[in-house]
Amino acid sequence: MGRVTERRRVMRIRGGVDAGARADTLVAEEPMEIRLNGRPLAITMRTPGDDFALAAGFLVSEGVLAAASDVRNIVYCAGAKDDGTNTYNVVDVQLAPGVPVPDITLERNVYTTSSCGLCGKASLDAVRTTARFPIADEPPVRLTPGQLAALPDRLRAAQKVFDRTGGLHAAALFSEDGELLDVREDVGRHNAVDKLVGRALQAGLLPLRRAVLLVSGRASFELAQKAVMAGIPVLAAVSAPSSLAVELAAETGLTLVGFLRGDDMNVYAGEHRIALEAGTGAAAARG
Amino acid sequence: MGRVTERRRVMRIRGGVDAGARADTLVAEEPMEIRLNGRPLAITMRTPGDDFALAAGFLVSEGVLAAASDVRNIVYCAGAKDDGTNTYNVVDVQLAPGVPVPDITLERNVYTTSSCGLCGKASLDAVRTTARFPIADEPPVRLTPGQLAALPDRLRAAQKVFDRTGGLHAAALFSEDGELLDVREDVGRHNAVDKLVGRALQAGLLPLRRAVLLVSGRASFELAQKAVMAGIPVLAAVSAPSSLAVELAAETGLTLVGFLRGDDMNVYAGEHRIALEAGTGAAAARG
Repeated sequence: MGRVTERRRVMRIRGGVDAGARADTLVAEEPMEIRLNGRPLAITMRTPGDDFALAAGFLVSEGVLAAASDVRNIVYCAGAKDDGTNTYNVVDVQLAPGVPVPDITLERNVYTTSSCGLCGKASLDAVRTTARFPIADEPPVRLTPGQLAALPDRLRAAQKVFDRTGGLHAAALFSEDGELLDVREDVGRHNAVDKLVGRALQAGLLPLRRAVLLVSGRASFELAQKAVMAGIPVLAAVSAPSSLAVELAAETGLTLVGFLRGDDMNVYAGEHRIALEAGTGAAAARG
Repeated sequence: MGRVTERRRVMRIRGGVDAGARADTLVAEEPMEIRLNGRPLAITMRTPGDDFALAAGFLVSEGVLAAASDVRNIVYCAGAKDDGTNTYNVVDVQLAPGVPVPDITLERNVYTTSSCGLCGKASLDAVRTTARFPIADEPPVRLTPGQLAALPDRLRAAQKVFDRTGGLHAAALFSEDGELLDVREDVGRHNAVDKLVGRALQAGLLPLRRAVLLVSGRASFELAQKAVMAGIPVLAAVSAPSSLAVELAAETGLTLVGFLRGDDMNVYAGEHRIALEAGTGAAAARG
């Protein structure tokens, strides 16, 4: 396979100070389309590998498959690349004769994420095309490591439900000065971000050209996409970003910060918004 | 609102010993259907609250909305309950005149989870109806707290990628004796479970009537549903379960263990599979 992880150059900040760039290992994330007897059924953002098992297991969950003999064949379809090469991101499950094909209506159709209807490179292009608000902060938002380091504590202090259940993801919007603007919690991280963006829309605040979005867990492609679509220039995550999130950030100009833990963090894209100059950068940030 | 959390009685095990039942706070999880001008567009598993903002923010991410004036109205539709009462789980966004309605084709349709096409109670019924393998372990699988406590370490030891990226979820299948059968990692926890189940299908091992499924994070409805559909009798999670996961487990006979951390854990459903008898339970489990 060889696509389970990807290497990418990352700007490391340790103790609030630039610790130099280094190649970092990212978990690979790519969309996979599952087809049933040639008909598109679902798209899931997944780590490549065991793709046929993923398609088969998905169809067990949907009640379509119950035994190996229900499957006639599983194949990679010709992919979506312009040059005709296979992306290995489209898998077709062909049922054995006699196995009932479920009625795939719009209501029963099962899409596993809210991302793209396309594959690989094409989906990134699609996001850029449909972006209503190109990221355009002039002059660019600038944040010191110290300002970024303070955000997770402010998020936690504002969380209402987390301490009682341990089961919620949180997302928060901050001003470029680090002031908490809004925080939402949800069992799904993408929902927490949608709620933030929806409230901003209703308040007439879109595009969020000078806002920072912080998420409590990992930064997936889907979350990076949501930041871009709302015109947000900076996405920070407490945990790791995926390879596709970093790729999208690099292409759209989004600043993507990961592993934001105290004064330590990694900057995966959009380093020009990180203020490391003497006096305003590392030294001042510790204060 | 009042539905952000739910209270439920839970069996607590502390230090491998029965610490008594107590009401526990769970994060609420319910499906919400998003409609656009009356037409179903997406279903997401969400924590109730800010539902109109969730729908609006989702449509910003999809490139449909860019300003508050793009929206004519957002309303709760009449719900899916048999008695006609509103479930508050179906939200219709009506666009303002002149706002382009996107072409909702099958390929561009956006379903945010792989669960149900229905709402609330109805979706649980649907899972039970379509289950190919009712949970039927005779005699029931029995696990001591000590056996359960040992599983997360075995999962971590088997993980290949996690230490390098910090970005992967893991899921593992164990025998009823605690032997590791298989482990998969993915950027999406539901994908890791689908890969496990798909490999079991391909190996002719379904239904997994005597297996234990362990997931590295939280236990959502979707993961509980996948366990039930594969005939797995025990689902254990390192973090919190959602309210709907507990409800599904209680209705289907699935044993659901949450917050599995060392010798401490909570049992949310299917307590009859937890062996707490003197000699085989608490005391022996500490050894």
